Amino acid sequence: MLGLMQDQPLLISTLIDFADRHHRDGEIVSRRVEGDIHRYTWKDVAARSRQVAGALDALKLGVSDRVATIAWNGYRHLEMYFGVSGSGRVLHTINPRLHPEQIAWIVNHAEDQVLCFDTTFLPIVQAVHAKCPTVKQWIVMCDADKCPKDSGIPNLQSYEAWIGAQSADYVWPVFDENTASSMCYTSGTTGNPKAALYSHRSTVLHAYAAALPDVMNLSARDSVLPVVPMFHVNAWGIPYSAALVGCKLVFPGPALDGKSVYELVEAEGVTFAAGVPTVWQMLLGHMKPGGLKFSKLNRTVIGGSACPPAMITAFQDDYNVDVLHAWGMTEMSPLGTLCTLKNKHLSLPKDAQMKIRLKQGRAIYGVDMKIVGDDGKELPWDGKAFGDLLVKGPWVVREYFKGEGGNPLVKDENGVGWFPTGDVATIDPDGYMQITDRSKDVIKSGGEWISSIDIENIAMAHPAVAMAACIGMKHPKWDERPVVAVVKKPGAEVTREDLIGFFEGKTVAKWQIPDDIIFVEAIPLGATGKMLKTKLREQLKDYTLPTA
Amino acid sequence: MLGLMQDQPLLISTLIDFADRHHRDGEIVSRRVEGDIHRYTWKDVAARSRQVAGALDALKLGVSDRVATIAWNGYRHLEMYFGVSGSGRVLHTINPRLHPEQIAWIVNHAEDQVLCFDTTFLPIVQAVHAKCPTVKQWIVMCDADKCPKDSGIPNLQSYEAWIGAQSADYVWPVFDENTASSMCYTSGTTGNPKAALYSHRSTVLHAYAAALPDVMNLSARDSVLPVVPMFHVNAWGIPYSAALVGCKLVFPGPALDGKSVYELVEAEGVTFAAGVPTVWQMLLGHMKPGGLKFSKLNRTVIGGSACPPAMITAFQDDYNVDVLHAWGMTEMSPLGTLCTLKNKHLSLPKDAQMKIRLKQGRAIYGVDMKIVGDDGKELPWDGKAFGDLLVKGPWVVREYFKGEGGNPLVKDENGVGWFPTGDVATIDPDGYMQITDRSKDVIKSGGEWISSIDIENIAMAHPAVAMAACIGMKHPKWDERPVVAVVKKPGAEVTREDLIGFFEGKTVAKWQIPDDIIFVEAIPLGATGKMLKTKLREQLKDYTLPTA
Repeated sequence: MLGLMQDQPLLISTLIDFADRHHRDGEIVSRRVEGDIHRYTWKDVAARSRQVAGALDALKLGVSDRVATIAWNGYRHLEMYFGVSGSGRVLHTINPRLHPEQIAWIVNHAEDQVLCFDTTFLPIVQAVHAKCPTVKQWIVMCDADKCPKDSGIPNLQSYEAWIGAQSADYVWPVFDENTASSMCYTSGTTGNPKAALYSHRSTVLHAYAAALPDVMNLSARDSVLPVVPMFHVNAWGIPYSAALVGCKLVFPGPALDGKSVYELVEAEGVTFAAGVPTVWQMLLGHMKPGGLKFSKLNRTVIGGSACPPAMITAFQDDYNVDVLHAWGMTEMSPLGTLCTLKNKHLSLPKDAQMKIRLKQGRAIYGVDMKIVGDDGKELPWDGKAFGDLLVKGPWVVREYFKGEGGNPLVKDENGVGWFPTGDVATIDPDGYMQITDRSKDVIKSGGEWISSIDIENIAMAHPAVAMAACIGMKHPKWDERPVVAVVKKPGAEVTREDLIGFFEGKTVAKWQIPDDIIFVEAIPLGATGKMLKTKLREQLKDYTLPTA
Repeated sequence: MLGLMQDQPLLISTLIDFADRHHRDGEIVSRRVEGDIHRYTWKDVAARSRQVAGALDALKLGVSDRVATIAWNGYRHLEMYFGVSGSGRVLHTINPRLHPEQIAWIVNHAEDQVLCFDTTFLPIVQAVHAKCPTVKQWIVMCDADKCPKDSGIPNLQSYEAWIGAQSADYVWPVFDENTASSMCYTSGTTGNPKAALYSHRSTVLHAYAAALPDVMNLSARDSVLPVVPMFHVNAWGIPYSAALVGCKLVFPGPALDGKSVYELVEAEGVTFAAGVPTVWQMLLGHMKPGGLKFSKLNRTVIGGSACPPAMITAFQDDYNVDVLHAWGMTEMSPLGTLCTLKNKHLSLPKDAQMKIRLKQGRAIYGVDMKIVGDDGKELPWDGKAFGDLLVKGPWVVREYFKGEGGNPLVKDENGVGWFPTGDVATIDPDGYMQITDRSKDVIKSGGEWISSIDIENIAMAHPAVAMAACIGMKHPKWDERPVVAVVKKPGAEVTREDLIGFFEGKTVAKWQIPDDIIFVEAIPLGATGKMLKTKLREQLKDYTLPTA
């Protein structure tokens, strides 16, 4: 049938083109590694992104060739986001907190051709470059005169010299929207890391969705601070959504301490910030003693790991900042759910609203989710039944890069593939999902499941506890029983018996109360700040449960 | 390259599925033709949409077969939106304000197989049914016991009996997202109407975009009143965006008078309403005398024709309602631009903000626009140069249904096709577009262009003028000169000389002041309330300009 709409692929280059045309003087402010503040505009981002594209052409990189970054949140990293993907190459953002051995492994697996890094990470590159034969060009992201001499890295070039040789007249190529655009390795706790490979289509759809009022609510009136790193799932897609709406962008660089973040928020009129709980804890820690307030910040999205209820309350009551709980994962680009209220909730009392706010939230249109039991059958959305959380949608992974790990999808009765998130969750009748645990961390005791997170949250509420990790220990009769590894706050005193007694009367059944408390110096953390329970289990491999 | 994201087509059925799962008890409230208020939920919409799909299967309709509606905004029309398109057929919404001859022509051109209509429009159907041989089933949208007897329409069935025979267990088919979903004929002022044919892809992308904070800003906390008709470019896409965000929907049915709309807004806690200026004029006209206020309405989008500045001010100053100017067209699904401020405008004084608000607004990401001169070359975005406005994007028409009128696109120097909107506009450096005229209405005087709209806005500001239409009249020396046809307000007195004098000192150059004022009883209006200047020119064909 003749007719229909124009055939225009969803390409990342159209995002930066749009910001270039419609938000030329929109500001991008970056705290640099050097410590100073750099300011320029979307027009500059666009021009320099085209120079990046030209520089990749000059290196004769082909379509879908990988270009890696090890970098903080900053303007040059932003240019790479658009220049690399826009020209048809794949942007591979590497987490600098990984062990150099792992970084080398990842670079080789990705077959990165170019690797651009912030000066901070020169030691990492010095440690790995000889082991990365696929990389034909190393770029240090600084001015030409700051390029380290005698670095030992052959043919090292500064970013400015590299792109400076190119014209900004580059014209973005047009290609299929299902072409790969970027990739991110998951910080797998077991086995080798696997990469999620995003496409232009998935990225642009995610950019629309992430800006929606029920998600990050991004507009041209916002000044946005992505504290969440650009090396970790594309800073939750904020760089793309920011170009789509033309908001001001504020990058913190490496300075994530409370004082630096606070000063940037105030100086740049930040209205919206996004990050993981640890950063906000530091921020509130800095603000509280001096009675500091926010002048324009009105909302923040917190994700990456479960957010302590006390922090949500603090932001809301003391600072008038709306805290939105989010959930997602590398395999989901990353946004899956966001916790915003519905029309009917607006008239609820505050504590009833808080109960909803503590959940991970409602699915964004584009993400389908369900919970299933051991038999794979869908469980009811009653807010009580909990099961493995599965998702699908156009920005959910179909398979990992190079097909690693085989087909990750689980087929339903209609043959449709769902991605198993590895989370265990409940979903209530209004569609609010709440993570109760990771599948591998849930404790199976006497045929029933105990959420390790529920136990940890109670332990963490004790004034003497700095950190708590609950794991299941083999038990001859019950299969597994929960024990809690606890790090005490400096100077605090508490006994095993105190803590076990602390669970009495809390929202756990008697049989769910942990059998033991183990005081430890520290709990092993992964590169993104998550507790590594596998490592903790190793450390406690000689532990035996007390006999009742 | 192995990897990448899941391949999930953007289908309209996934919108209603999403609302069904996540907003089951979200309310849909409709004022019916019968005058009463009907309430139900997204769950009901979903179930009954599936019944509509089943009913079309039972009639053995094929993929892309057209199903027409002549209906007000209401719940049954909403079910048709999802049931018809979701099952792979094309929803053809017909404007009941067209002449029955035109309706018959359109039904035949579209080859509609089924036509569903509200009881209000029975006379239209009685007038046309014998001339519409392609229609094999006529459905009147009412309860079985309200189905008119002796209507003269063979085999007329009630909507409730028709879908009531079907199960709600229907499973939506999955198909290519570029499949046609719906169509709408343009109310062309010359020649036969031509239809824009929308696809599932264009509709879903438009649904994401329309909900953005810089566009209609739709969330699950909203109660939305689409006054803009569902028979006119899909009510600006609100039904689709509403399902995407799960907001409450409130339908006014046929009652668009000020009192009925006001009562509905208040009774249903409407936060957002969208419509054309005439409806808002009636609403304000009803509210002013009694000093009525809105309790929850906080914003409205006004489009369809240029909005009088006085109305924007009234909404803002007297009712604390944010008025957003919008621009679009049938060929654009329809949204092109929306007028929201940028971050840097927030600190401007109110009158400077108002100057921006009076423009049609900034392009939404997904729409590219440019203005070109007579030579087809792009004109600068300086807010002064004005030229023909061209657009492109994934929800902009590529060609009309059945290829009518040939290829409408204009190719640029790179061979990319742009759709000529027929509007003349300026674009300022911040990307705000302002329509200065329709291409065919602009007055060419002595090699310069005069905007007929500018002249009309000044004339309309005179207290004695109810309506004004400016057209160009042939002139031996200047080629064309502007004259204004004026309808006086009831009881008001004003002379030709008064009105010409009224232009002195206003924002027009001396040579742009009209040569004459012609008092008329009425100005001919089209089916969507727009002035028909072609018809006016015909009526004034014997007119000659006064000799200076």
